Amino acid sequence: MGIHFGGDYNPEQWPEEVWAEDLKLMKAAHVTMVTAGIFSWAKVEPRPGEWDFGWFDRVMDGLAGAGIAVCLATMTASPPPWLSHRHPEILPEDPDGQRRWPGGRQHYCPSSPVYRSHAVRLVEQLAAHYADHPALAMWHVGNEFGCHTRACYCDVSAEDFRCWLRTRYTSIDALNAAWSTAFWSQGYGDFDEVLPPRTAPTFPNPAQQLDYLRFGDEALRACYLAEKAVLTRLAPGVPVTTNLMPQHKPVDAFAWSAHMDVMALDFYQDPHAPDDHVRAGYVFDLMRSARGGRPWLLLEQAPSAVNWRPRNGPKPPGAMRLWSWQAVAQGADAVLYFQWRQSLGGAEKFHSAMLPHAGTDTRVFRDVTALGRELASVPGIEGTRSRAEVALLADWHSWWALELDSKPSTALDHSRIALDHYRPLFEAGVACDVVPPQRELSGYRLVVAPNLYLLTAADAERLAAYVRDGGQLLVSFFSGIVDEHDRVHPGGCPAPLRELLGLRVEEFWPLEAGRTVAVDGGTTLFERSRELGGGAGAGRADLWSEAIDLEGAEALLRFTDGDLAGRPAVTRHGYGRGTVWYVGTRLEPALMRALLDDVREAAGVAPVLPGLPAGVQAAVREGAGGRYLFLLNHGTRTVEVGLPGPMRDALAADDDAASGAVDRVVLAARGVAVLTDA
Amino acid sequence: MGIHFGGDYNPEQWPEEVWAEDLKLMKAAHVTMVTAGIFSWAKVEPRPGEWDFGWFDRVMDGLAGAGIAVCLATMTASPPPWLSHRHPEILPEDPDGQRRWPGGRQHYCPSSPVYRSHAVRLVEQLAAHYADHPALAMWHVGNEFGCHTRACYCDVSAEDFRCWLRTRYTSIDALNAAWSTAFWSQGYGDFDEVLPPRTAPTFPNPAQQLDYLRFGDEALRACYLAEKAVLTRLAPGVPVTTNLMPQHKPVDAFAWSAHMDVMALDFYQDPHAPDDHVRAGYVFDLMRSARGGRPWLLLEQAPSAVNWRPRNGPKPPGAMRLWSWQAVAQGADAVLYFQWRQSLGGAEKFHSAMLPHAGTDTRVFRDVTALGRELASVPGIEGTRSRAEVALLADWHSWWALELDSKPSTALDHSRIALDHYRPLFEAGVACDVVPPQRELSGYRLVVAPNLYLLTAADAERLAAYVRDGGQLLVSFFSGIVDEHDRVHPGGCPAPLRELLGLRVEEFWPLEAGRTVAVDGGTTLFERSRELGGGAGAGRADLWSEAIDLEGAEALLRFTDGDLAGRPAVTRHGYGRGTVWYVGTRLEPALMRALLDDVREAAGVAPVLPGLPAGVQAAVREGAGGRYLFLLNHGTRTVEVGLPGPMRDALAADDDAASGAVDRVVLAARGVAVLTDA
Amino acid sequence: MGIHFGGDYNPEQWPEEVWAEDLKLMKAAHVTMVTAGIFSWAKVEPRPGEWDFGWFDRVMDGLAGAGIAVCLATMTASPPPWLSHRHPEILPEDPDGQRRWPGGRQHYCPSSPVYRSHAVRLVEQLAAHYADHPALAMWHVGNEFGCHTRACYCDVSAEDFRCWLRTRYTSIDALNAAWSTAFWSQGYGDFDEVLPPRTAPTFPNPAQQLDYLRFGDEALRACYLAEKAVLTRLAPGVPVTTNLMPQHKPVDAFAWSAHMDVMALDFYQDPHAPDDHVRAGYVFDLMRSARGGRPWLLLEQAPSAVNWRPRNGPKPPGAMRLWSWQAVAQGADAVLYFQWRQSLGGAEKFHSAMLPHAGTDTRVFRDVTALGRELASVPGIEGTRSRAEVALLADWHSWWALELDSKPSTALDHSRIALDHYRPLFEAGVACDVVPPQRELSGYRLVVAPNLYLLTAADAERLAAYVRDGGQLLVSFFSGIVDEHDRVHPGGCPAPLRELLGLRVEEFWPLEAGRTVAVDGGTTLFERSRELGGGAGAGRADLWSEAIDLEGAEALLRFTDGDLAGRPAVTRHGYGRGTVWYVGTRLEPALMRALLDDVREAAGVAPVLPGLPAGVQAAVREGAGGRYLFLLNHGTRTVEVGLPGPMRDALAADDDAASGAVDRVVLAARGVAVLTDA
Repeated sequence: MGIHFGGDYNPEQWPEEVWAEDLKLMKAAHVTMVTAGIFSWAKVEPRPGEWDFGWFDRVMDGLAGAGIAVCLATMTASPPPWLSHRHPEILPEDPDGQRRWPGGRQHYCPSSPVYRSHAVRLVEQLAAHYADHPALAMWHVGNEFGCHTRACYCDVSAEDFRCWLRTRYTSIDALNAAWSTAFWSQGYGDFDEVLPPRTAPTFPNPAQQLDYLRFGDEALRACYLAEKAVLTRLAPGVPVTTNLMPQHKPVDAFAWSAHMDVMALDFYQDPHAPDDHVRAGYVFDLMRSARGGRPWLLLEQAPSAVNWRPRNGPKPPGAMRLWSWQAVAQGADAVLYFQWRQSLGGAEKFHSAMLPHAGTDTRVFRDVTALGRELASVPGIEGTRSRAEVALLADWHSWWALELDSKPSTALDHSRIALDHYRPLFEAGVACDVVPPQRELSGYRLVVAPNLYLLTAADAERLAAYVRDGGQLLVSFFSGIVDEHDRVHPGGCPAPLRELLGLRVEEFWPLEAGRTVAVDGGTTLFERSRELGGGAGAGRADLWSEAIDLEGAEALLRFTDGDLAGRPAVTRHGYGRGTVWYVGTRLEPALMRALLDDVREAAGVAPVLPGLPAGVQAAVREGAGGRYLFLLNHGTRTVEVGLPGPMRDALAADDDAASGAVDRVVLAARGVAVLTDA
Repeated sequence: MGIHFGGDYNPEQWPEEVWAEDLKLMKAAHVTMVTAGIFSWAKVEPRPGEWDFGWFDRVMDGLAGAGIAVCLATMTASPPPWLSHRHPEILPEDPDGQRRWPGGRQHYCPSSPVYRSHAVRLVEQLAAHYADHPALAMWHVGNEFGCHTRACYCDVSAEDFRCWLRTRYTSIDALNAAWSTAFWSQGYGDFDEVLPPRTAPTFPNPAQQLDYLRFGDEALRACYLAEKAVLTRLAPGVPVTTNLMPQHKPVDAFAWSAHMDVMALDFYQDPHAPDDHVRAGYVFDLMRSARGGRPWLLLEQAPSAVNWRPRNGPKPPGAMRLWSWQAVAQGADAVLYFQWRQSLGGAEKFHSAMLPHAGTDTRVFRDVTALGRELASVPGIEGTRSRAEVALLADWHSWWALELDSKPSTALDHSRIALDHYRPLFEAGVACDVVPPQRELSGYRLVVAPNLYLLTAADAERLAAYVRDGGQLLVSFFSGIVDEHDRVHPGGCPAPLRELLGLRVEEFWPLEAGRTVAVDGGTTLFERSRELGGGAGAGRADLWSEAIDLEGAEALLRFTDGDLAGRPAVTRHGYGRGTVWYVGTRLEPALMRALLDDVREAAGVAPVLPGLPAGVQAAVREGAGGRYLFLLNHGTRTVEVGLPGPMRDALAADDDAASGAVDRVVLAARGVAVLTDA
Repeated sequence: MGIHFGGDYNPEQWPEEVWAEDLKLMKAAHVTMVTAGIFSWAKVEPRPGEWDFGWFDRVMDGLAGAGIAVCLATMTASPPPWLSHRHPEILPEDPDGQRRWPGGRQHYCPSSPVYRSHAVRLVEQLAAHYADHPALAMWHVGNEFGCHTRACYCDVSAEDFRCWLRTRYTSIDALNAAWSTAFWSQGYGDFDEVLPPRTAPTFPNPAQQLDYLRFGDEALRACYLAEKAVLTRLAPGVPVTTNLMPQHKPVDAFAWSAHMDVMALDFYQDPHAPDDHVRAGYVFDLMRSARGGRPWLLLEQAPSAVNWRPRNGPKPPGAMRLWSWQAVAQGADAVLYFQWRQSLGGAEKFHSAMLPHAGTDTRVFRDVTALGRELASVPGIEGTRSRAEVALLADWHSWWALELDSKPSTALDHSRIALDHYRPLFEAGVACDVVPPQRELSGYRLVVAPNLYLLTAADAERLAAYVRDGGQLLVSFFSGIVDEHDRVHPGGCPAPLRELLGLRVEEFWPLEAGRTVAVDGGTTLFERSRELGGGAGAGRADLWSEAIDLEGAEALLRFTDGDLAGRPAVTRHGYGRGTVWYVGTRLEPALMRALLDDVREAAGVAPVLPGLPAGVQAAVREGAGGRYLFLLNHGTRTVEVGLPGPMRDALAADDDAASGAVDRVVLAARGVAVLTDA
């Protein structure tokens, strides 16, 4: 089949006479799959219990006739007006008790039994109706769960939360202990007294907040699972997925992955953000890693500009192709867009589409068509996989806990910190998995743990065992601080990692905004850092510092000014058969890169391709379909890349004479090469 | 009568013994008109249905005796405590469902039948009581409609909105089509399901928002019209007006003008804003143009400082006189202030008044008195009119639609863009009308259409016809994009203007904040631009760019860097017997001025007076009362202005020997000259 | 007894087996007093009316056994979940009508009869139970009144407010006059119509807002007094206090002081704010002055970092000791911390504690212990007092009124202005009281009145009498403007001070943000200012200026640019036997210092110690226990301070040979010396 190519198809926005043209142009654009029906609820059930599938049958039949597969939405993402009109109790409420109203989308309380039962009834109709339709390839449940309504605080949610707590804690004493309610006189006498963490006069109980984030994720997942149960019952064998969003706090992608037959993602690179391909790299790696390396689907991206940022620049020439290939290089088996035909009205009419307002004689349609053709020209990639020797740890529970209020510093941003650790690996051209701490780590040469604030004793022991058995581990500051209930591990921070790291953190020493401190000591690091653009003299660090007492570890870098002058900033500790590094501050990027290069070399981790020019990403996929080396030039200058041996330029093949073996590739600005064994 | 001079008079704030002094000092200050009764409701109807006009009779009688005309307020602007206490349902609600409470003013839902019936009952009493009073010169309905309560989102408003929609659309299918509800599953089954655009989880439907802005304007107007109906019934022949506010988004001044016997404005120049006289110029021109050039009234301005900005500087010496004369120069037949005597208590006690806390021995009272005398010394201005060869188009519906969310760029600010186009004309000394696109344009040599995002096909055709018949038109970017329901005109942007402009916009290319791009190509323009203070080398543009395909037009300027390097930025197109310019970006001010100078010259539009020094405004009014040339020095240096021939200095006449003919005038800092034919 | 040393003790957070270790370590740390029970309500009354004092008895007995005094909290600061669950009507509401929910603390409406009756019932139990307990030293009512819930706007509060207004005004006419309701049609017909100043469409009535601030303060005080009444009835003779917060707008410390047996304060210096010891100085002086110079208690400070600022730096080495001694030097008889043992869970687990997570082998515990020992080594300080010749005036009512909206400038910040006047005195080493304007002033050589916007005629006359009788007074701009109902004093600003100051302010001339104006004229002042680091040439001023007409005063400084060039900026006026200075702008710090130095010398006010190095604070306490000179080096360089004669170094005594007399002291960075007569 090759890489799937296509987009969201919303035919209800157009008169039926347009549909035939749609099919014709989809074929011209090499479309192989569309996601249909995301917002069709109001049209298939125009009044409660009154079903109209006729028009949608014609859409499905047309697609089947054109040989286009359908990722069929369950249509539950946006309840129709009649539902919220008859049942205003389904509307969500924010922490201030303000109701959120219809007019946009996703205006439902995830805990609402009324919403859920209407959704399930709709999915039953859909599944019964289309289970055997030849166009049906996959089910797409809901849409971007938790995108706008991340959590609801209404009375229905409160009751659902209490129910969830009863299951989780059994006794109110257990909840009181978990939530540390002895502080601020919060001891509950009964589950009935518990509420969501609605806006309080001051910081609400952090464990209550943390559990509400967990509950919120599970409430959304319960919606997903309720629909999925119908689908697997009535249409067994058809894969079920939903489109996750990148670095999306309310939805724990690792927890969801267990319930998704295939991982799927919406990702909108920001053309105005110079480094957004690094964020893309992180998120794509996480998607791939979430289900153990299986290919995933890029279900939505923009052909060019979006409409929802304050200023929406279009994708510059070459960017759409480059970023699409980046997804494929990092494991995507589908490249889809929002949406097929650009809307004339509504909230997203200025969101670019495969077929723009201006029609087919446009840069966008030409680029889309060219990419569709190009993807179709390399049919073997689908199903191939990548291999990484480095694992970066990510954990939603730690993220949730870290960003609660009332911390040494509220400036610790999980997503930013994750990228601070991912970027030096990405830029060094090292393949990387992004996995939760519970994942089996023994296969990795190097594990990087950025800021795992919440870490259970069991997970800490798993990290220790990994190092003890010869693994190399890098841990950064403010890790291993609290348990699963946001309670500080007793025994001196970071208690469960103290022996492993060979040190104790006596006091946190967060830095003011804009303040930097100097670090020094690692001569080699600084030479390397300066090569990478770091400043002369001692290195700089910011955001955070801490008073480290060495208990076996050695100091690689020390603070050389400020209150902590002379104390360790970065340490190394031999532990068992492995080694663990600890970074007690945020190093400037070039120094962080130099450190990671050192650590990586110590761990014997090589880049995908040595000697890559700056800005060029290399990735490999291999499997039954062959072995593919992807070279992606994220820069805007032409560069030349030497290959490890003679290879075939898969993209050049059809059009160029140069379909023979090459040993070097010239990549234009934002250029892409796909190479196979010659 | 001459230009009316005076201010808001709120005698209820003072014991009656002060009133006699008021009359004496008003005469000393040359006051000819006061606005009375704006906030008198609680005092004339202290309890429901209990009327006390005695004290107000004495006020009116006193004014009549002093020969001072009264612009009599209908007293409905601020409902008394007893009304909201007995009927809390009149209180407005914001889009979050939060009620807005009494304690300030304007705390009523415009759709409230309770509020409206109480207001009408009060106006009936007033009109019956004062219809024949000798002091009554004019009715002043309400006060600053929509100033604080721009719209209400309560259930009463919701029902009124549905009623308005039923009238507008007749069928729910028509509403669904107009609102593009096929997107996001928003199809309504019945009008009963429709709500105001209350805060939703994400962008509410834009057509729903746009219609709510229309409805909000009409709901306010319905309040005005309900009162006006009483007044014309019970006091026929007395002109009816209300004080509009400048560039006030909730109130469509053009739509209101049809119902106002005379246009009236409140305008508070900001002494801390260096260019606020340009904004004044724009707003004054709009007031004058709204009723086809008839004189209008400046019903409120501050004698010096206001109290409601964060930091309220007083007007520097000369500014109050200058800015008052600016209003007269641009067509005002009245110069009034808020307020006569400075309050000792309440929310506006630090708002300056004609008679300050510090009494008559003050700069403010002296300046007020001098201005009153000066205005009285030039009695013929009243009723004279101005003539403009340039029309700037303004349209509330386009404004409303433009500033909705979910756009290519949310940085497009209608008021700012309007001034970007008005300023070069103002600074060049060109007389200008500000009119809606529906106005007859054939009389103008040049029409400037800044950013008419929403443009109906009919209005677009009117523009085309204007050019076809020999008119010169300048259109700026992001014009002609959507129809009256915020639906993109199909056919390639800007579809309804595409043939006229001779081009197509393939993609919008909005720029990041702070980003500029270079433009070049128009040698002459750049010379002129540099004379005007523009930078050397190529010009700069910011905010917006777009990918223009020429379809008959020629490029005057092209982008020379950035993604669009080489593509057109400013174009010109001969169409029929006229010419149309198109500006696809925001040019830096000097370049915009140079372009407008070129365009204006091509159109044969001359300034009011050639060779004016920078910062000097010239305006002419003429009519039965004579011909007046106003020269206003907005700068702080003394300048000399040569006159086209010998004229008489009207302001010098009384005091100076120099009452003979002059051929040049020296204007001190913030100086004013009024010249008549010698 | 010496200076009390200890902290908040929250044993309910820990299993009983930890309590014995607590007592042992408290003794090791020289703890003499703990505050216990602040958040124990839920644990002593786990269900309504069900009392469990057993565990708390064991805590109290243990402390008594260890000879540690208890400041016993009334436990009412944070209502338990069962109370708000059964009575949600106790929850407070904000001005938008949004309820504030449980989950934090202080979630009660101060006017709630339900909350108050439950609180009183609890205090009755406590007082009956512990009145005669040997550990009981003091009662601590509630906790940080008004910290989070500064005021409530619910219907219960509304009714309580109306009740308060009926008492205050007797008739609705009196209220209408006081509130200037004639403006904006706000005349009330009956008290029933009055509401709290909930969010209105625009500025709510300022007098209504001002009275609501008064009412809010009294509603909180009513809670305090209701509990105090129980305590004095059931445990007569035990002193009653509560922990006030510094510069805490909702709570008028002067009004509360009349009801506090001893003043007590929580103060958290910000380690990231370079000058926070000056703010501390101001607040400590206010505490000391509030009850006529009697010693006060520092009930809470942090041993190191807090958790509630966005970024919480720890206290750098030496700072905790220095800042603790600063409190003692300025009159504190107790130095306590929040809290004894660092929490493992809950909202404040990252707030430092005397006993950190990391245990006794920590900088913090070592420093705490050393300070405890050091304080115990100087046993005579307790009960001694200080004497000041300068009084700085502070007034909550003026503060409240000043910071209402709708002013000439909303940039006037009471706390900032107070420090602008306090800093030059503090840095000059001058002892200073901070007292309300109603205090007897005749004993002071100099009185400084910063920005007393609200000043009753009676208080103004008291200031005049003070000067008339030979006092020296400095008044700064925007003083004496309004009466107790925020009504402008008629007669030209500042009317009640006009004769005293010998001038009139014709117009306020507030400056734009970032704008400065030049002042010049006082040669000597400028020399002195330049010595102090002020810029060369004329001085600068910002924030505010005004048009002053001299009426007897002489100009010391004049504005030399801007609109007011040539007009007075700072004046001096001989009045009776005294002199009054007036400062009509905000002078740059060095110039303000130079001016205050001049004024102070004219008043014959000497510093505590002449020739102090910059950054060193000197303070004296004396009494039955002896005479103590405190020298505190707030700088980070070592300095030497000469003494007026040979003295004994009280802190050096135990450890050093140098226990003999010294005539100079070397202070290391953040060093402290306590000297007694040799």
